[in-house]
Amino acid sequence: MKKVEPRILSGFMELLPPDQIQFNWMVDTIRRVYEEYGFLPLDTPTIELSEVLLAKAGGETEKQIYRFFKGDTDLSLRFDLTVPLARYVSSHYNDLIFPFKRYQISKVFRGERPQKGRFREFYQCDIDIIGNESLDLVYDAEIPTVIYHVFEELQLGKFTIRINNRKVLSGFFESLGLEHEITDILRIIDKMDKMGEEVVKRELLEQGIVEKNIDAIFTFLHTSGTVEEKLASLKKLSNHPLYQEGLEELEIVFSALKEFQVKEEYYTLDLTIARGLDYYTGTVYETILDDYPSLGSICSGGRYENLTEYYTDQHLPGIGISIGLSRLYSQLKEAGILKENHESISSILLVPMDKEVRGYTLDIANYLRENGIKTDVYYQEKGMKQKIKYADRLGIPYVGVIGEEEVAEKKVAFKNLETGTQELITKEELLKRLTK
Amino acid sequence: MKKVEPRILSGFMELLPPDQIQFNWMVDTIRRVYEEYGFLPLDTPTIELSEVLLAKAGGETEKQIYRFFKGDTDLSLRFDLTVPLARYVSSHYNDLIFPFKRYQISKVFRGERPQKGRFREFYQCDIDIIGNESLDLVYDAEIPTVIYHVFEELQLGKFTIRINNRKVLSGFFESLGLEHEITDILRIIDKMDKMGEEVVKRELLEQGIVEKNIDAIFTFLHTSGTVEEKLASLKKLSNHPLYQEGLEELEIVFSALKEFQVKEEYYTLDLTIARGLDYYTGTVYETILDDYPSLGSICSGGRYENLTEYYTDQHLPGIGISIGLSRLYSQLKEAGILKENHESISSILLVPMDKEVRGYTLDIANYLRENGIKTDVYYQEKGMKQKIKYADRLGIPYVGVIGEEEVAEKKVAFKNLETGTQELITKEELLKRLTK
Repeated sequence: MKKVEPRILSGFMELLPPDQIQFNWMVDTIRRVYEEYGFLPLDTPTIELSEVLLAKAGGETEKQIYRFFKGDTDLSLRFDLTVPLARYVSSHYNDLIFPFKRYQISKVFRGERPQKGRFREFYQCDIDIIGNESLDLVYDAEIPTVIYHVFEELQLGKFTIRINNRKVLSGFFESLGLEHEITDILRIIDKMDKMGEEVVKRELLEQGIVEKNIDAIFTFLHTSGTVEEKLASLKKLSNHPLYQEGLEELEIVFSALKEFQVKEEYYTLDLTIARGLDYYTGTVYETILDDYPSLGSICSGGRYENLTEYYTDQHLPGIGISIGLSRLYSQLKEAGILKENHESISSILLVPMDKEVRGYTLDIANYLRENGIKTDVYYQEKGMKQKIKYADRLGIPYVGVIGEEEVAEKKVAFKNLETGTQELITKEELLKRLTK
Repeated sequence: MKKVEPRILSGFMELLPPDQIQFNWMVDTIRRVYEEYGFLPLDTPTIELSEVLLAKAGGETEKQIYRFFKGDTDLSLRFDLTVPLARYVSSHYNDLIFPFKRYQISKVFRGERPQKGRFREFYQCDIDIIGNESLDLVYDAEIPTVIYHVFEELQLGKFTIRINNRKVLSGFFESLGLEHEITDILRIIDKMDKMGEEVVKRELLEQGIVEKNIDAIFTFLHTSGTVEEKLASLKKLSNHPLYQEGLEELEIVFSALKEFQVKEEYYTLDLTIARGLDYYTGTVYETILDDYPSLGSICSGGRYENLTEYYTDQHLPGIGISIGLSRLYSQLKEAGILKENHESISSILLVPMDKEVRGYTLDIANYLRENGIKTDVYYQEKGMKQKIKYADRLGIPYVGVIGEEEVAEKKVAFKNLETGTQELITKEELLKRLTK
């Protein structure tokens, strides 16, 4: 028979079991923390009507969409979880309880040119809080608090959540008479981290921004000190109402973050954070790993006032943040930061020596499983060496060998694969060893 | 602004949070049992190359595929998890440890005409065990054992796992000289449950099967008694080698099922089970809920010898089974069988009376979360009635109200929404109430 090469598409992730277990542990951890903060699970369809999903989209986003016809229907695969959320909230408005706190951990699809660490199909882990008419600014502090606990639990070392406010940026640039250049300026400022101040300055000049305004922009960006000191200095720079409103919002958010007991060294006010997406209207976030700044932002988001305006007349402001998990995972894996994880691996492999002792072996297996111990049993007729190798290669730490002698004594030969030791113990003792 | 109606496609499932929580509980339960038996997680891409995914497909299957081009690439969404598994095992052969036991719980896509209880995008929860060259028949008993424990944990009432063997069917019909009609006969016999014996007989006659052979077929199908008695009677019906081989396999599987301590009333030998899919070569399974036979088989599978033959020369026999969870969920939901579930709902809502007590409230919230209690906090400035309503409508059973008095006494006003009682208790007492 002619064979087809069993390959997958480039830009798609597929893991071997030990890596998949590590990945799932990250998903489980994120989900657990999200639920600890009262976020409810959601699972929207992968395929949506193009008309609905792309109501707002355009430009780069639209080019990346997996869009196709099935019969006469124009379909698209979701490219993020935010637009489906806007659609969901608009559609189920009457059945939801506000503020609506939801999380969704799902794959999204973007047909961009595959690059190192970029995927065409990848997991996003999103939380959002949607208010009905209004949403208290305290939620703008709750979002980074959740993220703080997520990254703490993921044990990725020191990280910094960078916080800014779009109103501060917009107001400041309007005060310079640069309201029409805001988008371009923000795009250039966004490169500050990667390209440095010189490049940014040159690009701003090329953009037609006069020296005086560039100086003002840099004074603004170079505001230093603690968060409180920065806010105090910034207040003096301009009286523009939107600018002052943004600063007041930041004050509330940072003061709430203290109450939320997020350690101060884990967040900062960073005026260079603008976020490319045009739907953010207030607080914006990015998160970097201090030891791996080159990974860029591993978790970003912000507040949006008008996300549902394409679907409903209701005013439903929201705030949310997203972890791009597939990319984060592959980068952490490559950097060697991730610890091995055994959550989904059996705690023990039971090995019946022959068919006659299988019944007894299964007694033990049932007893362990009833007590929550993941237990694999090896049934192939192979030599003992191969059976042990099966456990060893899978990363199962213990083997319980059962032969006639063990059955007669109602015991199990308990083998520690790491130390090589072996002892004859009862099933109760076995459970105790595996539980601690 | 012109609004787009925020609708989803017909045949796609989208749940409100309380239903999503129930659904996720089912997924979590299935996953937990799968892992207890040593199955490893897998997550293959949603989109595959059509050439690879459809190496074997054809006919009805191919028509249902979501297939499209992105640039020059011919892509398809997966329509099951079995073909991706065959591709995966062939591709990663050198990195896998055999027997390879994997589970995958993922969405699959079939563009069939939407019918009641049928979805175009739905979850399958699969387990499979793949052997290298050979796979012991004991694994054919382990698969229904896992399923037995899954359905026991899902608390769906009495169910029956119906077991048969394709060799028995094929061998028996060959012995009647009906080897070329096997596919047609199996298809007609498959209707026995739904249509009854008369219809099956008429269709067989129409198919050109002579009366004598129909009698023999019915004698075969009507074999009665316990599993052991059935097997003993069947052995006498024909000496056909394949038929006898199939019976011997069934004997081994049923004898192992006893050792696996699956209660005998939960499984049966059912000679009418054929399974439509042509890749099964030995043991086959279906599962029905005894009180809801009209739901049809809620969990089906079997043994396949040649699934990877399109991709590799390696001989990799396997056995597997699949729960079509979206369909099962929606049917159970409609039948009112599913119990309410609160696993992912916060255990308590904390309500700070004003901003001044927020810090103290967050102390309590952190304390509870550190101890694994899902805790939501309400920050909107609303009346107490609305805050309580938020908890009540979400199904959060307790509210902890905190005002100046509570802060002064270092306590929480603990309100039970069901009974309406309220008491002033410390955070340690609070934790105790929420833990038990």
